[in-house]
Amino acid sequence: MITRMSSLFLRTLREDPADAEVPSHRLLVRAGYIRRVAPGGYAWLPLGLRVLRKVENIVREEMNAIGAQEIQFPALLPREPYEKTGRWTEYGDGLFRLKDRKGADYLLAPTHEELFALTVKGEYGSYKDFPVVLYQIQTKYRDEARPRAGILRGREFLMKDSYSFDLDDEGLERAYLAHRNAYISLFDRLGLEYVIVAATSGAMGGSASEEFLAVAENGEDTYVRSTESDYAANVEAVTTPAPAERSLEGLPAAQVHETPNTPTIEKLVDFFNAADLGRTFTAADTLKNVLVKTKQPGTKEWQLLGIGLPGDREVDMKRLEASLEPAEVEMIDAADFAAHPFLVKGYIGPKSLKDNGVRYLVDPRVVTGTAWLTGADKDGHHVVDLVAGRDFTPDGTIEAAEVREGDVSPDGQGTLVAARGIEIGHIFQLGRKYTDAFEVDALGPDSKPIRITMGSYGVGVSRVLGVLAEQNHDEIGLIWPREVSPFDVHVVIAGKDDALSAGAEKLSAELDAAGLSVVLDDRKASPGVKFKDAELVGVPTILVVGRGLANGLVEVKDRRSGDREEIAVDGVVEHLVKLVRG
Amino acid sequence: MITRMSSLFLRTLREDPADAEVPSHRLLVRAGYIRRVAPGGYAWLPLGLRVLRKVENIVREEMNAIGAQEIQFPALLPREPYEKTGRWTEYGDGLFRLKDRKGADYLLAPTHEELFALTVKGEYGSYKDFPVVLYQIQTKYRDEARPRAGILRGREFLMKDSYSFDLDDEGLERAYLAHRNAYISLFDRLGLEYVIVAATSGAMGGSASEEFLAVAENGEDTYVRSTESDYAANVEAVTTPAPAERSLEGLPAAQVHETPNTPTIEKLVDFFNAADLGRTFTAADTLKNVLVKTKQPGTKEWQLLGIGLPGDREVDMKRLEASLEPAEVEMIDAADFAAHPFLVKGYIGPKSLKDNGVRYLVDPRVVTGTAWLTGADKDGHHVVDLVAGRDFTPDGTIEAAEVREGDVSPDGQGTLVAARGIEIGHIFQLGRKYTDAFEVDALGPDSKPIRITMGSYGVGVSRVLGVLAEQNHDEIGLIWPREVSPFDVHVVIAGKDDALSAGAEKLSAELDAAGLSVVLDDRKASPGVKFKDAELVGVPTILVVGRGLANGLVEVKDRRSGDREEIAVDGVVEHLVKLVRG
Repeated sequence: MITRMSSLFLRTLREDPADAEVPSHRLLVRAGYIRRVAPGGYAWLPLGLRVLRKVENIVREEMNAIGAQEIQFPALLPREPYEKTGRWTEYGDGLFRLKDRKGADYLLAPTHEELFALTVKGEYGSYKDFPVVLYQIQTKYRDEARPRAGILRGREFLMKDSYSFDLDDEGLERAYLAHRNAYISLFDRLGLEYVIVAATSGAMGGSASEEFLAVAENGEDTYVRSTESDYAANVEAVTTPAPAERSLEGLPAAQVHETPNTPTIEKLVDFFNAADLGRTFTAADTLKNVLVKTKQPGTKEWQLLGIGLPGDREVDMKRLEASLEPAEVEMIDAADFAAHPFLVKGYIGPKSLKDNGVRYLVDPRVVTGTAWLTGADKDGHHVVDLVAGRDFTPDGTIEAAEVREGDVSPDGQGTLVAARGIEIGHIFQLGRKYTDAFEVDALGPDSKPIRITMGSYGVGVSRVLGVLAEQNHDEIGLIWPREVSPFDVHVVIAGKDDALSAGAEKLSAELDAAGLSVVLDDRKASPGVKFKDAELVGVPTILVVGRGLANGLVEVKDRRSGDREEIAVDGVVEHLVKLVRG
Repeated sequence: MITRMSSLFLRTLREDPADAEVPSHRLLVRAGYIRRVAPGGYAWLPLGLRVLRKVENIVREEMNAIGAQEIQFPALLPREPYEKTGRWTEYGDGLFRLKDRKGADYLLAPTHEELFALTVKGEYGSYKDFPVVLYQIQTKYRDEARPRAGILRGREFLMKDSYSFDLDDEGLERAYLAHRNAYISLFDRLGLEYVIVAATSGAMGGSASEEFLAVAENGEDTYVRSTESDYAANVEAVTTPAPAERSLEGLPAAQVHETPNTPTIEKLVDFFNAADLGRTFTAADTLKNVLVKTKQPGTKEWQLLGIGLPGDREVDMKRLEASLEPAEVEMIDAADFAAHPFLVKGYIGPKSLKDNGVRYLVDPRVVTGTAWLTGADKDGHHVVDLVAGRDFTPDGTIEAAEVREGDVSPDGQGTLVAARGIEIGHIFQLGRKYTDAFEVDALGPDSKPIRITMGSYGVGVSRVLGVLAEQNHDEIGLIWPREVSPFDVHVVIAGKDDALSAGAEKLSAELDAAGLSVVLDDRKASPGVKFKDAELVGVPTILVVGRGLANGLVEVKDRRSGDREEIAVDGVVEHLVKLVRG
């Protein structure tokens, strides 16, 4: 069936939408693929839905290829299973919760670990039933604090989530690798530029976990990779190599100095370097104590938490949040300082935190035997040579400090370089968190129960569409990869002559008969308007039926390269079929 | 790809689920198509999802065939557009409402009239843009008071909803007929037994409206049809023909009688027939006054309402509810009688209702000049010859009385017979309710705005699957129509001999290569278990590879008729391809 622009529900826009921050959002709206109807909620117009279905089907093919079986759950689910695993509470404000007419609690599911585990428990019982991999392609909900960038971060979105169920860790490892390979195949097929990085597992629980990040300048995720090895990780997942502990023996005693007007690291270092102590200080020699407050999900009280880190590094809030998840975290404010007079702003040291029962976690670099220049808990005073393990003992370590380009790679090979990306896939080895919660067992050959181990694997299907647009566009519009283009060929009637219409109709019918999908611009608009729209809409091949037709010629334009080629009308169908089929 | 029972995520059940009231629910659960995961919420297991996708695609084809264009909206929508049309309130408890993290009101959409109207307003502006028909196949939510019968009445379900936008009433009529024909084509293709009946338009608003009801003994809807004409209507939509008004002249005056112990119609009629008044009374001569209370959506107060109807008819609550929609309605209870002493139970008449400001609506049969035996508003007293239009004047008429088989058809031709059905489709001429609310106009050729008129058309996609099961089963299992069967052929290896497995594998591969979809029962179970499961699962054609294979024969069984045929193994693929392709 030929799609006609004259009746297609499509109005392209000349102006960028006011709320569009990134190219994919801007162009998908302008080219009439999506429309915003709510914060983080988008309508898929005909072109957008066509592309979405293509992406969805490619995802489905790759899942089926690894033997995963498709099922589908409701999005509206009762509280109980999520209560049982703690996620009802842990998800915090990110979960849409509601009550039904009887007052029972429900949620709009962000992911379905609980339901898949329960369903496998319900259907399967013998070791012979396993392994099994199930998946769904389904609408998901998250109450994002800041929905943004169009479909890249919405509150209702389409996701493929799959779950593996295995008898043992080796089985889980196999299922994990099968998914890893399926995702590589999937994202390669879509022509995406992406990296696979180590990840934290977030609210899912579990251990081994990697993310597929599409490379994107304006991505929300930052990842680092080593200059010398294949180490790559989301910054949230980077672990700081701890130096070896040092002997406490013979270290000079801690000394308090009066240090007027030194509330910043820079002033402090300058002060001491000017103080003629016989040595030189850098910011890295100072121990900066940052106070935050945290709130566990389901509780209302904020707790103080001290973070100690070398003074040459800032706290990276995303890393800190990832380390403290599922707790919420905020910097303390003036009111908190006022409420806790032992916190001397600019001069906080480990001592008063300990004396006042504030939990104190330090950067992994702060090992036993390291000596620090830090606050003396008294206005205008600092202490030199405060030694970890001698003068203070932190409650533990935390990954909260920023990761910087040039840092040594955690695997010890090379240094780190950073880039930004958009998460398009995530694979987890969940282990037994969910199967423990629901006692999902298989009866073994010896009639003893075997606790099942689980993996969870997601692809953001609608987000992938956004990422495809992000990686495939220029200033004038979208440029779809053939695999997902809404149409194979965009036929433009470039003129008002009836012969042109007739010729274009005939060619479109022939292309359609040859199995290509065709959009035909049969509108009464000027050729200029039609060309602009064709470039904006982004079908990779544009067939222009214009004045040359009188001489038996039509023009084939490659949207990506801009190359144009005059082709004999007699051979153009065959030419295009070859082009499209590759 | 051949689906193997040995790995298919399927466990058939021997026992009926405890909560299953109807055959489709019972069999879809037992055969492993669906699983209940919440009240009115079902998971689609692999077999169920396959059938659902087939139904969905047939619906899509029929919609595309009438030029409708597919788009898709979120299910989670902000309150504002639904507030504007009043539906936020009118839907009452049937709407799932929730708040986001910022406290803003949202709903899970039951239908999308508002969003489609707004989107057309946003994209289109000229008379040249119209007509347009848009649709989506999307998950819908309704907080049903009594979710029941499995997927026949769930709270989360899949629906196709389309909307037509026209410049004038003739256009709307054309779009309506196009949908009517598309639905006929669709339901015929699915082999459903159904009727098209006049319908009320419910909370949608609008005028002309018909329902497609699948014929089903245990359906929730009752419809009637004429013995002599093509009149057919949902009982809720039956209009009672009003007799002609009669002259008031010469009618005898109303007379109050003491009628001790006559709180029921039967006792009352007996009393008067024994009272020797020179005439015979029947229940139809009495005017029964039934008191109900109603509550408008968004209000908290219940209002009394009197319903007057001939004493030989009961109030049909569904008809009454349909007449009063969107108000809620309940019978009054003892507390209400106590609170309103002017309501003399068993002896209520029109007079005290009027005197006490209670709204009073009567059956259309109660026309001016009709004389009634009714309550005298005094314990143990009735009044004879109380004449409508002389002694009392109702506030209007209402369709609340039961419709009975044998009633004269509203079109005057023949009498009514009743049957039950399940609503599978609904077509409405909405008119301008929504386009007025959002001022959806097109600029006409004279540059004057034309208010667009709208139609709305729904098919319950997941419900259709349930109805198909309801109409296609026997005692031992499901029997799918070919168009929607999860597989074309169910191959059973009937024996443990390796040669049988090899033969069945070879045939399955050949069938697969020929383009048929195959499920192969390669489990280690006994032939008896496999046959039972095949019959339960309901693929229309079963290929049994058994002992006959040694003699070059296999058996083809027709699931519906039970007929078995021995076929030479060499010709069976060709035979089955013909069978399946029709």
